[in-house]
Amino acid sequence: MSGIVPVVLCGGSGTRLWPRSRADRPKPFIPLLGDRTLYQATLDRCKDRTLFDAPIVVVGEKHLEFALPQSNDVAPDARFIVEPMGRNTAPAIALAAHALSPDAIMLVCPSDHFIADLAAFRSAVTVAADLAREDYLVSFGIEPTAPETGYGYLRRGDALPGGHSIHSFVEKPDFETACKFLAAGDYAWNGGIFAFRAGFFLAELERHRPALAAATAAAFQKANRASGHIRPDEPTFAGIKGESVDYAVMENTDRAAMVDVAMGWSDIGNWDALMSKRSSDENGNVVCGPGETIGSTGVMIDSDGPHVTVIGATDLVVIVDGDDVLVTARDAVQRVGEASRCRKQ
Amino acid sequence: MSGIVPVVLCGGSGTRLWPRSRADRPKPFIPLLGDRTLYQATLDRCKDRTLFDAPIVVVGEKHLEFALPQSNDVAPDARFIVEPMGRNTAPAIALAAHALSPDAIMLVCPSDHFIADLAAFRSAVTVAADLAREDYLVSFGIEPTAPETGYGYLRRGDALPGGHSIHSFVEKPDFETACKFLAAGDYAWNGGIFAFRAGFFLAELERHRPALAAATAAAFQKANRASGHIRPDEPTFAGIKGESVDYAVMENTDRAAMVDVAMGWSDIGNWDALMSKRSSDENGNVVCGPGETIGSTGVMIDSDGPHVTVIGATDLVVIVDGDDVLVTARDAVQRVGEASRCRKQ
Repeated sequence: MSGIVPVVLCGGSGTRLWPRSRADRPKPFIPLLGDRTLYQATLDRCKDRTLFDAPIVVVGEKHLEFALPQSNDVAPDARFIVEPMGRNTAPAIALAAHALSPDAIMLVCPSDHFIADLAAFRSAVTVAADLAREDYLVSFGIEPTAPETGYGYLRRGDALPGGHSIHSFVEKPDFETACKFLAAGDYAWNGGIFAFRAGFFLAELERHRPALAAATAAAFQKANRASGHIRPDEPTFAGIKGESVDYAVMENTDRAAMVDVAMGWSDIGNWDALMSKRSSDENGNVVCGPGETIGSTGVMIDSDGPHVTVIGATDLVVIVDGDDVLVTARDAVQRVGEASRCRKQ
Repeated sequence: MSGIVPVVLCGGSGTRLWPRSRADRPKPFIPLLGDRTLYQATLDRCKDRTLFDAPIVVVGEKHLEFALPQSNDVAPDARFIVEPMGRNTAPAIALAAHALSPDAIMLVCPSDHFIADLAAFRSAVTVAADLAREDYLVSFGIEPTAPETGYGYLRRGDALPGGHSIHSFVEKPDFETACKFLAAGDYAWNGGIFAFRAGFFLAELERHRPALAAATAAAFQKANRASGHIRPDEPTFAGIKGESVDYAVMENTDRAAMVDVAMGWSDIGNWDALMSKRSSDENGNVVCGPGETIGSTGVMIDSDGPHVTVIGATDLVVIVDGDDVLVTARDAVQRVGEASRCRKQ
């Protein structure tokens, strides 16, 4: 039986965690929860070499400087596919599939998610891998715990061993619809975690997106391997019209499956989500770095140096990073990406 | 007729405007409104040498470095009394009185107040000076525009030429009492601006606080004048039990008078008061220095360098000064002095 190969995707700019997350030092590579970065925690989850093979990390050229040293301790056997630029997840996963034997089971993992329950994660991985070996394209269906409007939802279809087929995909519903989904009980969040057999994934990509598949294959074949890393041919890769694996493959294949899992998952998609994963004091305040709260509740301070004093505030997030100070209401954190300094970078 | 001598008092730490105002660079000497500091604006108001004589500035040794250069342009004729330490206003005013002829009219001016209406100020000065020449100890009665609980109030007594005797002094009333004062109409704020004939002030001080008067006189007599400034003898001055001019003299003399004035006065006593004197945009936001607001109302940003982004906030003040960031609700600005970093200094 082939092993399970973690394919760690390091794309995504994490602009909603600006100013701590920046284009030149994005979300996966900064320590947001404890001493380990989310990228390191992703590798940590897959470090058991009785269950997982050596991981493949797909990372942008600009961020290799973070990905390399941050994997040294836990995954010194990691291989790196270094993208000259981002082209979304379908090409990234295809590159990894080309680097593997057709029967390898890929576990596609975003590098910037938080998972609290490792046992539940491992259990779901095992079930998903079994379905993937039967040539299902398996998405992890994350148990929804709130009517989130920022996620895609998967609707459960027919039962399969350990999971279900996917009845349908729903992109970012409005709040009312999301509430109905939770009440209905047969919807899950699409967490962007997948299990594929490498050869079958490439076959389905070829079937549904032949141009993308051909261009990615060509970029891989012409890759520069001189450094020990796989660097896809830049002109060829640049010509690819990027697309997500959901749009390119999952929504088109008739072999889509889902495995339900409740594992304390969060995409740490904004400062409020991050705050909820940190320890707070009796007034619901979280202070990371030098700072203090006075007469405040539900306040998070996170400073990389300057001392922050917050007085008489409620449900507020204050981030200091280098030459930027962000102060945002917790119910407005979705708008962080609008900040001019964030958009310039 | 003797001229009117501005006596500019530079005590007061301005801790409620921390972190911009600090013990080593306090409120009078920082530009809070426009390019001029409040100290400079105080000298500006008294620069007309047809009405005012050269001012006397009473300043702490630590702050002479600010007071000297900041008076060069508008009051190059200023004289300086340099206190080795603060001993409140009664000794400070007494030192100035000793430096003047007995018939000089002193106009005692705090150096950290804002006055919008210069004509009203000058008019009140003239009236107060006339009363002072008749040996009244004259306090400016500032027209109260809100039931402030942080100020002392003066209650009007019998009519005098251009003013009234002072019926009574009320220190910092509670909110309900302050509302009654406003409704009653015969109360004014004690703004800490006074007009005295120098000789009469010293006589009344001698009468009501003989020990303080004697010690201050001795400190002045033994002053070091080597530098061109008057430096009261340190051991003698240090031994003085400091007291405010209100407690030591005004509340005890039977020659207390008040002159009512509405002159757009503010003591700029906290960040909210300062904000109300600055220009705001259509959403009531004030941005001084690099910063922006998104979806916010009633927010003031004041940064000395770092770029501040405020999102989705209401009635909030964000101050960045050096290595300190203050974020305070506008209705909690009175608590700024509690900040540990402020208290340490």
